[in-house]
Amino acid sequence: MNLLLLEPAEIASDGRAEVTGRRAVHVREILRKAVGDRIRVGVIGGRRGTAEVVHTATERLVLACELDGDPPPPSRVTLALALPRPPVLRRVLQHVAAAGVKSIALIASARVDKSYWGSPALADDEIRGQLVLGLEQAGDTILPQVAVHRRFRPFVEDELSRATTLRRVFADLGAPPCPCDVEGPTIALVGPEGGWVPFEVELLIANGCAPVGLGARPLRVEAAVNALLARLGLP
Amino acid sequence: MNLLLLEPAEIASDGRAEVTGRRAVHVREILRKAVGDRIRVGVIGGRRGTAEVVHTATERLVLACELDGDPPPPSRVTLALALPRPPVLRRVLQHVAAAGVKSIALIASARVDKSYWGSPALADDEIRGQLVLGLEQAGDTILPQVAVHRRFRPFVEDELSRATTLRRVFADLGAPPCPCDVEGPTIALVGPEGGWVPFEVELLIANGCAPVGLGARPLRVEAAVNALLARLGLP
Repeated sequence: MNLLLLEPAEIASDGRAEVTGRRAVHVREILRKAVGDRIRVGVIGGRRGTAEVVHTATERLVLACELDGDPPPPSRVTLALALPRPPVLRRVLQHVAAAGVKSIALIASARVDKSYWGSPALADDEIRGQLVLGLEQAGDTILPQVAVHRRFRPFVEDELSRATTLRRVFADLGAPPCPCDVEGPTIALVGPEGGWVPFEVELLIANGCAPVGLGARPLRVEAAVNALLARLGLP
Repeated sequence: MNLLLLEPAEIASDGRAEVTGRRAVHVREILRKAVGDRIRVGVIGGRRGTAEVVHTATERLVLACELDGDPPPPSRVTLALALPRPPVLRRVLQHVAAAGVKSIALIASARVDKSYWGSPALADDEIRGQLVLGLEQAGDTILPQVAVHRRFRPFVEDELSRATTLRRVFADLGAPPCPCDVEGPTIALVGPEGGWVPFEVELLIANGCAPVGLGARPLRVEAAVNALLARLGLP
C-alpha cells in the first residue's frame, strides 16, 4: 500500500478521518506507523497528500489529512479484456488500475468459459475492491470505469467500429510487434488464454482494429496486459 | 500448458514417452485429450514438436513424439531481480521464463527482507519447477540459468562493472522512460517493492548502469518485470 485511500464520506471538513479494518491493520502492522508518524493518503475520486496518525487502536486509526496534490496522470489507453477466469480477473483488475487505465471493458469471446460470467468476482463491490488495491499500489485516486459486454459481435460492431477517433489495436500472437509510445487515445484488446478464434480476428480487422504482437510466445493474460500497456505508452 | 515438457530421460530413442502425475492429469482433464489426439511436446533443453496420445490411464500417459522443431528465440535480456517475497518470486520466475529470459540473477538489496533468503522457494527444485511452468506456458524448452547473489555491492562492483559489452539498465521510479527495442544484449535490474535506497542508485550509476523509468506509478514486481521486458524488446 503506497497510498491509503479514503472514501469521500470518511473525511471531515477539518481533514480528520477515521479508518477501520484492513487499512488500519495495514498501517499499524505492515507500515508500522504510530501516533505522530505520517503516511500518504488520498480520497477516492479526489486529491492526495499526507496524513499524520493522531490516534491508533486495534483496527482503528484516526488521521489528520492534508490533501495538497493531484493524482498521477492517467493512461491514454482503454483496455478491452476477454473475461478471464476469476482469480486472473482479480489480479488483472489490480494491475490495470495500477497502470493508470481509466476505462476497462470486460468482453465476451469464443474461448471465454461461459461459467465465468456467473462468478462472484464480477460483482460490483468485488471489482471495486480489486481496483482500490491497484490504486493503493500506484498512489492513484481515480477509479477506472468498468463496462461489461456479454456479446462479442455487438461490442465490436457497435462500440469499436464507431470509436474512429481512437487508435484501435488487439494483441494477437504472430502479428507485427506492438508499436511503442503511440500518440493519442487508444483502445487495446487482449484475448482469452488460447487466443482469439479466426472469426473474431476477421471481425476486429474489419472494424478498424490492427493486430499487434507481443513476441513469439503465448503469454499469460497478466503478462500480456502489462506488456501491452508498457509498449503503448507509460503514463 | 501450451507445451508438455519431457525430461530428456523420459523419452526413448523411438520417440515413446511415458508421463505421470500433474502432466498426465492436465492432458486428460484440462486439455481433454484421448487416445489418437495430438498435443504439443518438447524436451527440456532440446527440441519441440507434437505427440500422439497412444495410451491413457489415471495419472499415466504414453506418447509417441515427433520432435521436429526448435524452441522460440531467446530474449536478449538478462534480468537481475532484488529477491522478492516468496509468493511473488514463484510467480515472477514463471513470467520471466515465459518471456524467454535465459539468465536470471536473484540479488540482495537494502529493502529485501533477510528472512526471504531462508525461504523454501529458493530451493533448486522449487525454482526449476516454476521455470518449467513458465516454459510450458510459452512453448519453450530451454531453462534459464539462475544465479543467487546475497551481497549487493560485490554483485555490482564485480559482476556488473565488468559486463561492459552489455547495455546495463535499472528500473527506477522517476527516471526517464525506458527506451524501446534496444539493440544488443542487455542486463536489466528490478529493485524490491519500496525501491532502491540512494546508496544503491549511486553505486549502480557509478558502475555503468542507467536508470530507466516505467511511468509515474510504483508498480508491483511482476508488473515492473513484464513492462520492462516488453519495452526493452520482444523476443
